[in-house]
Amino acid sequence: MSAPVWSVDPRTGNRREQVATEATAEEIDKTVRAAHAAAAALADRAQRARLLRAAADLFDQHVDKVVECADAETALGPGRLSGELTRTTYQLRAFADIAEAGDFLDVRIDHADASLVPPRPDLRRWKVPLGVVAVYSASNFPLAFSVPGGDTASALAAGCPVVVKAHPDHPGTSELCAALLHRAAAEAGLPQEVLSVVHGFDAGVELVRHPLVAAAGFTGSVRGGRALFDAAAARPRPIPFHGELGSLNPVVVSEAAAAERAEEIGAGLAGSMTLGVGQFCTKPGLVLVPAGEAGDRLVTSLTAAVSDTEPGVMLDPRMRTAFVAGVRERAELPGVESPVTPGANGEHTVSGGFLTVDAERLAGGGDYDLLVEECFGPVTVIVRYGDVAQVSAVLARLPGNLTATAHLGAAEAAGTEDTGDAGAARLLAELTPLAGRVLVDGWPTGVAVAPAQHHGGPYPATTSTSTSVGGTAIERWLRPVTYQNTPQPLLPAELRDADPADVPRTVNGVRQS
Amino acid sequence: MSAPVWSVDPRTGNRREQVATEATAEEIDKTVRAAHAAAAALADRAQRARLLRAAADLFDQHVDKVVECADAETALGPGRLSGELTRTTYQLRAFADIAEAGDFLDVRIDHADASLVPPRPDLRRWKVPLGVVAVYSASNFPLAFSVPGGDTASALAAGCPVVVKAHPDHPGTSELCAALLHRAAAEAGLPQEVLSVVHGFDAGVELVRHPLVAAAGFTGSVRGGRALFDAAAARPRPIPFHGELGSLNPVVVSEAAAAERAEEIGAGLAGSMTLGVGQFCTKPGLVLVPAGEAGDRLVTSLTAAVSDTEPGVMLDPRMRTAFVAGVRERAELPGVESPVTPGANGEHTVSGGFLTVDAERLAGGGDYDLLVEECFGPVTVIVRYGDVAQVSAVLARLPGNLTATAHLGAAEAAGTEDTGDAGAARLLAELTPLAGRVLVDGWPTGVAVAPAQHHGGPYPATTSTSTSVGGTAIERWLRPVTYQNTPQPLLPAELRDADPADVPRTVNGVRQS
Repeated sequence: MSAPVWSVDPRTGNRREQVATEATAEEIDKTVRAAHAAAAALADRAQRARLLRAAADLFDQHVDKVVECADAETALGPGRLSGELTRTTYQLRAFADIAEAGDFLDVRIDHADASLVPPRPDLRRWKVPLGVVAVYSASNFPLAFSVPGGDTASALAAGCPVVVKAHPDHPGTSELCAALLHRAAAEAGLPQEVLSVVHGFDAGVELVRHPLVAAAGFTGSVRGGRALFDAAAARPRPIPFHGELGSLNPVVVSEAAAAERAEEIGAGLAGSMTLGVGQFCTKPGLVLVPAGEAGDRLVTSLTAAVSDTEPGVMLDPRMRTAFVAGVRERAELPGVESPVTPGANGEHTVSGGFLTVDAERLAGGGDYDLLVEECFGPVTVIVRYGDVAQVSAVLARLPGNLTATAHLGAAEAAGTEDTGDAGAARLLAELTPLAGRVLVDGWPTGVAVAPAQHHGGPYPATTSTSTSVGGTAIERWLRPVTYQNTPQPLLPAELRDADPADVPRTVNGVRQS
Repeated sequence: MSAPVWSVDPRTGNRREQVATEATAEEIDKTVRAAHAAAAALADRAQRARLLRAAADLFDQHVDKVVECADAETALGPGRLSGELTRTTYQLRAFADIAEAGDFLDVRIDHADASLVPPRPDLRRWKVPLGVVAVYSASNFPLAFSVPGGDTASALAAGCPVVVKAHPDHPGTSELCAALLHRAAAEAGLPQEVLSVVHGFDAGVELVRHPLVAAAGFTGSVRGGRALFDAAAARPRPIPFHGELGSLNPVVVSEAAAAERAEEIGAGLAGSMTLGVGQFCTKPGLVLVPAGEAGDRLVTSLTAAVSDTEPGVMLDPRMRTAFVAGVRERAELPGVESPVTPGANGEHTVSGGFLTVDAERLAGGGDYDLLVEECFGPVTVIVRYGDVAQVSAVLARLPGNLTATAHLGAAEAAGTEDTGDAGAARLLAELTPLAGRVLVDGWPTGVAVAPAQHHGGPYPATTSTSTSVGGTAIERWLRPVTYQNTPQPLLPAELRDADPADVPRTVNGVRQS
């Protein structure tokens, strides 16, 4: 008998209903083989676009049902979840456009040239889908980074069938979303095996090891993600594993910024770090604030704003326990203070807060390295610095991040001050190696779905150089193939001289409009 | 004392001279730190281009010396080696052009748009160099895939300092090439630490494990490459490992092709499989030939041409031993015949030859799986098939390849015959999943350096989806970074509204010319 999969209400800890069973190894094999067999059905880019648009329309038609189910399993609230669903349908439609436009095929054509050494044959390159993609859902985004999320949308747009390993925190939502995607597949004339959902921890491990799985996308913890990354790398035939594992998202508030708008920054930080009960992968987890009066004002503002924040329910009791323990362990370090103590509040909720520490202590490393590890939940660490050398010393200790943020004074931002060694240019040069997205005067929570977005960063933020948000996320599921001296009738349409598909192409090194 | 590194003449097995010592762990650390420190000097794309062009000019000026040294260590012959050097300087100049043009930065700019959900901030994305790149030289290309080769040229073009682990078969050539590259660096006003060469097996392992090494490129065997790939994946912070490990390069000769030009195909195959003493990564190692009279003529032609080929000296005695043993093991399988027996010929040379086997036997697997493993050296396996179902059955057993080739009849190639299930379109559809380059009516040896080239393929051909030849090889050494709401003066020039660098950009999803 397969283990039952229960939908659980995190507000009460009570089981709602059994929604599925955990997949056995045999079931994973059957599911992956069926997905593999469905790959050919995804050959047509226009049909993929129809699938993605049909899915977006169906989610639009079932907003209430989807949001209600997701809220019952995650306690993220209807407001946040309908916003997340809007983001999700926008994303599905954006990838439909991308599939149709065909820019991602990166078509390059070099005509034969006998005058070169060595002589050049006719070469025509494009990108083909890798095959079945395994998607590991995130706990904290039951829609936008789960069954109908960015990994699924980009993989389907690329022409890859998807097998999603559902997150145990929202199995019912996962099944509901899968049902809508199956209806969308039927509407687009595609077999429903282009997308499947499986449940269970062991099923997830089986999945990444399956010989017919060609790539994987993951959003989650360092521990879980690294284990799957290692399994992907240890396969007889290793596969690309695009995992987003964790991020501290450092913020540096310059002396000038603190002097000019301490209160605004303190309040903004409180909003960003407690958003979604601190369960964002882009939560600012370490904030460098100047010592002295302006920095004190910032902390005072933060104190007031965080104290005003309502307690919230975390995604599951295990996370709640880890959060409470993680805060306690950090708070017990000598010299660490907690002006607003984060932690348990009632039986199922937690309240947000923050810790403070001197930059010199943190830069000393040792036990203080714990403070540069992500702590999932509504807590951030305020690091008080005396000078820019201390800022540099702290930044030098940081692992890779999704984001890094600078809050600058008006003159610094305008480039009118004497930048020199201590200026804003140097600070941005120090932040860039740490992250995949560098922000000025903003907050990292909130990741726009856009062509120029990059949601990824040096390990452990990401296990590859890829992004999981934005148009270029599709690049993860493709590989190039070049056809040499291949007769026109045997070429894919996009590579023929008279391209009926009209995709953008680079011919003899020159981009055609 | 460090172990001495000797230059050895493969024609005699005699030591020529000691050219270096193996690098200790301390020396690797010092070398990588110096390379890391030199990264900032490579920030300017125009200066990288000057370095690459100065290097090409210096190699042009020292052709005789470089070719003489490489020939003394590899026995590949001055003709082949001067051709390889021409290819190498062409490649260096091509990457100089690529560095200057800046297309590889893949600049994407999205202007702020408050009307979107969620509202879009100003986002500006480009690609930055990863950091120090470790390059593992190939045995069989002492120039084009070694110290001044494609990995080095593309990494320097990307802005990454390079540490090359020299191949033990050509340490003297490696040192000579490094000296020329150091002169080029001086001429371009760059520190010589932008490129270093180290020797020794243990040094190579230390190198891939060094915390400041950010990526690796490798060309070599499955065994060596997989060990380094595993080490790269097992690091506390895993790094991209772009390894080219081995390829069988299957060729399918259709019934019609054999009927129309059996003799031409037989002779062409002999030339391709014995080129460079069969030591090309793109050597056709498995050739499907129809049973019957036309196929017999092909084999007769091959027999004559291979018998006429001069014996050659392999790169080192270890490879020679492995080749002789590999051929023997394959030839001993029941039903495998060797019309022209490949193997030892004199004390230091080998002669080329080929084996034949029935498709049905090969498709049966078991011990016959040995025949679908690459055997480095001048040998190929001719598989005689009765019908297209047998072709499919053999192709289904193959691992990933750099190339896959179809020889077609004139009507098949013209698309005028009834393609149906047995036609050329189906054959190409079967070959495409097996390889990174698909050829029609040609031979896979010879890899043009061109924008549309792809030299890579499913594992074990490559450990990633990347190419090591052609303009897109630069993509391996970069990662995207997006700047959000960053003031103009603090942006890199390429991302400012008035781009003084004039690189190609995609703005709000629309490519600018």
